[in-house]
Amino acid sequence: MLIDGTHYRTIRPADDAESVEIIDQRRLPFAVEIERIRTYHEMIAAIHDMHVRGAPLIGASAAYGVYLACLEFSRDERGATDTALFDQKLERAMQELDAARPTAVNLRWAIERQRTATAAARTVADKINAARATADAIAEDDVAMCAALGRHGAEVLATVCESNGGRVVNVLTHCNAGWLATVDHGTVTAVLYEAAARGIPLHVWVDETRPRNQGSLTSWELSQNGVENTVLCDNAGGHVMQHGMVDAVIVGTDRTARNGDVANKIGTYLKALAARDNDVPFYVALPSPSFDPRIENGLKEIPIEQRDPSEVLTIRGARDGRIETVTLFAPGTRAANYAFDVTPARLVTGYITEKGVFTAEELEHALTDRPSAKIGDRRDMRRNDQ
Amino acid sequence: MLIDGTHYRTIRPADDAESVEIIDQRRLPFAVEIERIRTYHEMIAAIHDMHVRGAPLIGASAAYGVYLACLEFSRDERGATDTALFDQKLERAMQELDAARPTAVNLRWAIERQRTATAAARTVADKINAARATADAIAEDDVAMCAALGRHGAEVLATVCESNGGRVVNVLTHCNAGWLATVDHGTVTAVLYEAAARGIPLHVWVDETRPRNQGSLTSWELSQNGVENTVLCDNAGGHVMQHGMVDAVIVGTDRTARNGDVANKIGTYLKALAARDNDVPFYVALPSPSFDPRIENGLKEIPIEQRDPSEVLTIRGARDGRIETVTLFAPGTRAANYAFDVTPARLVTGYITEKGVFTAEELEHALTDRPSAKIGDRRDMRRNDQ
Repeated sequence: MLIDGTHYRTIRPADDAESVEIIDQRRLPFAVEIERIRTYHEMIAAIHDMHVRGAPLIGASAAYGVYLACLEFSRDERGATDTALFDQKLERAMQELDAARPTAVNLRWAIERQRTATAAARTVADKINAARATADAIAEDDVAMCAALGRHGAEVLATVCESNGGRVVNVLTHCNAGWLATVDHGTVTAVLYEAAARGIPLHVWVDETRPRNQGSLTSWELSQNGVENTVLCDNAGGHVMQHGMVDAVIVGTDRTARNGDVANKIGTYLKALAARDNDVPFYVALPSPSFDPRIENGLKEIPIEQRDPSEVLTIRGARDGRIETVTLFAPGTRAANYAFDVTPARLVTGYITEKGVFTAEELEHALTDRPSAKIGDRRDMRRNDQ
Repeated sequence: MLIDGTHYRTIRPADDAESVEIIDQRRLPFAVEIERIRTYHEMIAAIHDMHVRGAPLIGASAAYGVYLACLEFSRDERGATDTALFDQKLERAMQELDAARPTAVNLRWAIERQRTATAAARTVADKINAARATADAIAEDDVAMCAALGRHGAEVLATVCESNGGRVVNVLTHCNAGWLATVDHGTVTAVLYEAAARGIPLHVWVDETRPRNQGSLTSWELSQNGVENTVLCDNAGGHVMQHGMVDAVIVGTDRTARNGDVANKIGTYLKALAARDNDVPFYVALPSPSFDPRIENGLKEIPIEQRDPSEVLTIRGARDGRIETVTLFAPGTRAANYAFDVTPARLVTGYITEKGVFTAEELEHALTDRPSAKIGDRRDMRRNDQ
């Protein structure tokens, strides 16, 4: 998508073919800084410390991390010849990458895809090529998948707009399920960008999304790409829904369980409750790699990351052109920092996927191996795992 | 209550009897600064710009504002002798004070009480004395009322503790319905302080409460007075309730309508929804001056203040010993800032008042003139208005 009129992706292999370029999202929306990642340890840090964030982008980043690990190990003593040693080191690196964040299933999914691809290659050189090809494929698939998801979601908003008599469609979203959370387009924002491209009049309520204020990313990327939006504190979503100012809620997901329970940024559940209480449809933008059929009951089984309390107790912002961190509470204040919550499937109107829009009951059938009449315009990426 | 071991009230007439001392709450919890208010215009600014905040304290501040206005007008040319001119100026001042904040009913209630008191006095000197006596009475009544409310609420928590088998009672609260929002004790915190004094084991989840982060006040005052607490982002309340970590929610109110609908800090409604969805009892600490029987339907009729978007787009915090404001969003970002929302009565388990704990159906009977068997330990303050 566009930044100051220029097209960017969030991640790409550098021209030297030995490193990967990412946007250091910790500096956004105040500064656009491209960061060069040269080692898989740097990639782990980038994932863990949230230079990159968002489930799909975490997946792509981890995949490129495996590629960087391959390059590194091929340069070690005996690295290019001792395949067993190489495999052993690579497996450890993949486990370390897998542990960089706990909630997003895309991370594990990308690592598994890399594990299969590198295991199938015979020589170290082949493994490097396989890792690079798989990382590129994950990135390209993500772009295509987001675009397809956007087309299905735009049809939902077209219907809302029609039933509104053509008036502006007000969408509320939480966190950043934007192109910045994917390789391009985004998940929720793919829907918004596609709807805007089709001429549907749109206005987006953007939740601030404390503690990390990803709403600042969403608002910024929507504005950069011409979509009208207004930021709200996380507290305000109920009020605007009570007063008829929201036509649909659309959120992303870090992992959706087989029963349709949705793990997403902390606070999503509160918005789902308000949507239900006010008869506002609540949609989840769910690319199939974020669907985890191995988890039967999301509320009971999805691990919820607890992050450092300092993310709650302090905040970063701009002052006189610099990015500064200020402390929001008295010294010694204790805080808890649950990063995600789980929205029960009963509160979800529909799941917007790259294959169509489904109910919780239809999800497993639509997104896994079993043949489905609704499977649409691209192959099921999960098949590559098998 | 205590600050560093010394007892304070949030407002008191200064020893010179010509000014009023308040705590400038904009500097809390980083600095405790006593501000001297010398004119009613300064008091309007202090209310409007939230040097003082919280419905009960706004009421007391406005009452002292009327006293300051009386002093000022008595010093004007002909001020001490021309009673008609004095009354005319005073009425205008009371209207200006009344307009300083729109949502808290205590403001109007306090002004009306002053209007009655000053109108009943014959000479300018008598009016000054009446205004001072009424302001003092409002402040003292508030202290006594909060203490009584705390006793009734502590009984609720004692019951929760018993049914918990004596384990720690986890209370979630939103905003600051603390002693800082009243003259002393607080409303929600009166319950907590009294429960702690009775030896009930307590832990309080404190909502951050964006945009103005009054949670930093709540956390600070609880810690200063020995009550264990942990700060959460506003987004996290649903998650902790889903996982059995909350035994009761208790919030304050800026105005509660005859039907029991509760106007309180933006975001309260979302916590009420989560409480209902997880069978957590949801209580409102409601001193009777915050009950407004003239409003039949809270959701439809209570005016909701919209404050400056800059409160959302920026935030104040401490850095290197200084209080600084940082910008959280990209330049040009648009924000909306609804300061309150209305929680429908159907989501409220009970209203903890100075006269007992009531349901929505019992409220009007219990808090207005009609005699009630439940009327408890003090006279109905509303009678002074009639």
